[in-house]
Amino acid sequence: MVGVSPNSSTTEIFLNTLTRFGYKGKIYPVNRNFNQVSGLEAYPSILDIPDPVDHVICAIRASLTPQLMRDCVVKKVKLVQLFTAGFSETGGEEGIRLEKEIAEIARQGNVRILGPNCMGIYHPSLGISYEPYFPRDAGSVGYLAQSGGNSMYLVMLAAARGVRFSKVVSFGNACDINEADLMEYFADDPETNIIIGYIEGTRDGRRFLEAMKKASAVKPIIILKGGTTEAGTKAAASHTGSLAGSNIIWESIFRQLGVMQIQDMEELVDLILLFQHLKPVQGGRIGLVGLGGGSSVLLADSCARAGLVLPPFPDELKRKLRVILPADIDPGTSFRNPADLSASGWNTDVFSQSIEAIDAYNGVDLTIVHITVHAGILDPPLRDWLIADIDTLIRTRRNLKKPLVLVLQDDHIPEAIKYSFDIQEKCRQADIPVIPSINRAAQAVSRFVKYCVHNN
Amino acid sequence: MVGVSPNSSTTEIFLNTLTRFGYKGKIYPVNRNFNQVSGLEAYPSILDIPDPVDHVICAIRASLTPQLMRDCVVKKVKLVQLFTAGFSETGGEEGIRLEKEIAEIARQGNVRILGPNCMGIYHPSLGISYEPYFPRDAGSVGYLAQSGGNSMYLVMLAAARGVRFSKVVSFGNACDINEADLMEYFADDPETNIIIGYIEGTRDGRRFLEAMKKASAVKPIIILKGGTTEAGTKAAASHTGSLAGSNIIWESIFRQLGVMQIQDMEELVDLILLFQHLKPVQGGRIGLVGLGGGSSVLLADSCARAGLVLPPFPDELKRKLRVILPADIDPGTSFRNPADLSASGWNTDVFSQSIEAIDAYNGVDLTIVHITVHAGILDPPLRDWLIADIDTLIRTRRNLKKPLVLVLQDDHIPEAIKYSFDIQEKCRQADIPVIPSINRAAQAVSRFVKYCVHNN
Repeated sequence: MVGVSPNSSTTEIFLNTLTRFGYKGKIYPVNRNFNQVSGLEAYPSILDIPDPVDHVICAIRASLTPQLMRDCVVKKVKLVQLFTAGFSETGGEEGIRLEKEIAEIARQGNVRILGPNCMGIYHPSLGISYEPYFPRDAGSVGYLAQSGGNSMYLVMLAAARGVRFSKVVSFGNACDINEADLMEYFADDPETNIIIGYIEGTRDGRRFLEAMKKASAVKPIIILKGGTTEAGTKAAASHTGSLAGSNIIWESIFRQLGVMQIQDMEELVDLILLFQHLKPVQGGRIGLVGLGGGSSVLLADSCARAGLVLPPFPDELKRKLRVILPADIDPGTSFRNPADLSASGWNTDVFSQSIEAIDAYNGVDLTIVHITVHAGILDPPLRDWLIADIDTLIRTRRNLKKPLVLVLQDDHIPEAIKYSFDIQEKCRQADIPVIPSINRAAQAVSRFVKYCVHNN
Repeated sequence: MVGVSPNSSTTEIFLNTLTRFGYKGKIYPVNRNFNQVSGLEAYPSILDIPDPVDHVICAIRASLTPQLMRDCVVKKVKLVQLFTAGFSETGGEEGIRLEKEIAEIARQGNVRILGPNCMGIYHPSLGISYEPYFPRDAGSVGYLAQSGGNSMYLVMLAAARGVRFSKVVSFGNACDINEADLMEYFADDPETNIIIGYIEGTRDGRRFLEAMKKASAVKPIIILKGGTTEAGTKAAASHTGSLAGSNIIWESIFRQLGVMQIQDMEELVDLILLFQHLKPVQGGRIGLVGLGGGSSVLLADSCARAGLVLPPFPDELKRKLRVILPADIDPGTSFRNPADLSASGWNTDVFSQSIEAIDAYNGVDLTIVHITVHAGILDPPLRDWLIADIDTLIRTRRNLKKPLVLVLQDDHIPEAIKYSFDIQEKCRQADIPVIPSINRAAQAVSRFVKYCVHNN
């Protein structure tokens, strides 16, 4: 750790986070002016460290990095990760020259560079992280992120919804290790089942294309491309020195390869959840089950707009549903598609049997169930009904032949948020992905269906 | 209140909610079998009530409503609101016939009907509500809602973000009072400044068009149209018996009148906030201020995609910003548009002066500031910085010449949600609308700009 001093923010971010995550390897702070940093013995230069060094994390200023790189060559370091910024992303001559210089030293000296201008690596199973709040446990999502800030936001956003990561790499200006290397890595990585990326530009378009081709043949890839507009492209150039490239070309490449492109971090998490919890579908014919008329209308509209098909339920299924529903049926109930169970949906038998009947109908490929968690949830009758329905849904899920998605909207009052949070987690553990918005659910399911059909 | 019995859910919804809201008028439960309901004297029929009756809320079954309507004519009731469902929305002959019958009795007897199949009226300043959790205080948003469920969800969703309502009317099947009547009412209502609507279809297209024309000339109108697709149209027919009509015609009417059409409840709330807190803008040239590279790229992309213009900052403004920023500038900082203040943005002087400089530049019409509330907010340094920046923003706001919008993303962990909730409320009180998503902020601002330009 080069450039960490007692109580500095970089010490907090890089050094103390490793300690908190229980990183097992040895850590050597490097600082000319201190003998100790965070209770660890510090060295004036990496050449003074008595042991071999695999990985250097660098936070000194840019002008000092060429000398550090030369020292790293001597020390036979494998990887230098540069948090240091002030290189090509400044657009200035000196920054561009410096970046070329360190890349050249690395190439000739057989050292690899991650960055510069990056946060580095989050690898929970090895106890490596650059954010103390990231989850300690590992999962199966691999994330290559050109922006450190977007990597942190997305990992936390996803973590709150139960997603865990195999490895996350924030790679900044990508002067050596770039998006193509990382894509190749994740394609082969047995700990990674889903690859996601935040990319601003490519340093080696042809290789990245080949890497995506190879990776997309074996794993779903979801990309949020930064710099898809002129304004965004300029911002990306200042941010990571990236040449964003033509958006039309990117889009056509993504489409050809079946790489899913999304435009929003929350959509990215929605889609991860579907891939993590659902078996592939055969097509895009959706059965909808709701507990309210207005929300059923909006759900039907959103699904249709997203290109999903809502087959009208045949008479046989409608008869089946009619038998399931109580004799003194709520007049709000409807048996078409959507099946709006209205208040009868709070009867757990009606709820589970209706879902089973729709699942058994061979005209649908996937079922979406919609429930709203509103303020009334604080009061006993509705609270108990909701808990009973969720428990029933989790039990019912086991008997279903086709994937099921729950749309769980809450009305954003803190008590309802807490409730829907708990329900989300309970459902996730039972392999029911939960999406908190009608529109986003329809979008995510549509993308999931397209992916499955494309790769069938 | 016809059809309320002790401890029934309709008693809870309609009668007990009025009591809780401090409704000042007299309430007469009507029930053949009980002498008392919720501590109030009950009457066998409305004809037995000793006083005049203005408003009847009806929850008896549909087949009994014609007799009730005849009694109401005799009693000279002004308005009968029917929670009762089972009319035209069933699609059955009997329901359609019954709806015609009660409408005809009402017309001949000079009684008005709200509904059937509706929740009725929320009028906080009179203490009238059908949902105990609605806010007790009134605001300036008028809402005509064809769906009771969607009315409840939207009011709570908006309430959590500080929006208050003048009147909300859930009007269901609209066999008498319909969307055109309500639009005319809200156009003239001095307590209503913004009109929003959830509409599934129209009973009188020509009159509704005229009413929207008149209303849109004086107040912003935002409509969520249910039944814009074939699937949604069928669901709307089962829900409120509505003929949704051609989506192309609806869209072209909305566009001509400057009525804003949105597709999602959360977008609706975003837009309300802009109209409530911002003065009209002259155009769509946006200045962006961010505290992070990746989020600035996404914000720029989202704005450009939404049709907003991000003028590159001229050299003079860039020089001004350079002077504001510290001498040992963070290399991540950028002076283009977006201005990415990077970590220097946590310096309150830098933060406020940068915003003021951009506001003073005559090439922008509105400023969007972006901040992420992430997990680190729990710890002292960042927590204090964030609080200081928000307080600074609120103070700075007073000196600005142009509107300002804050995009405040949080990473959805409960602690961050609580923080961003508090910040949102603080900002709202200072007339800074807060939108929790980059994409949604860009969409809402774009719609707001289009409205202002259209009505200039």
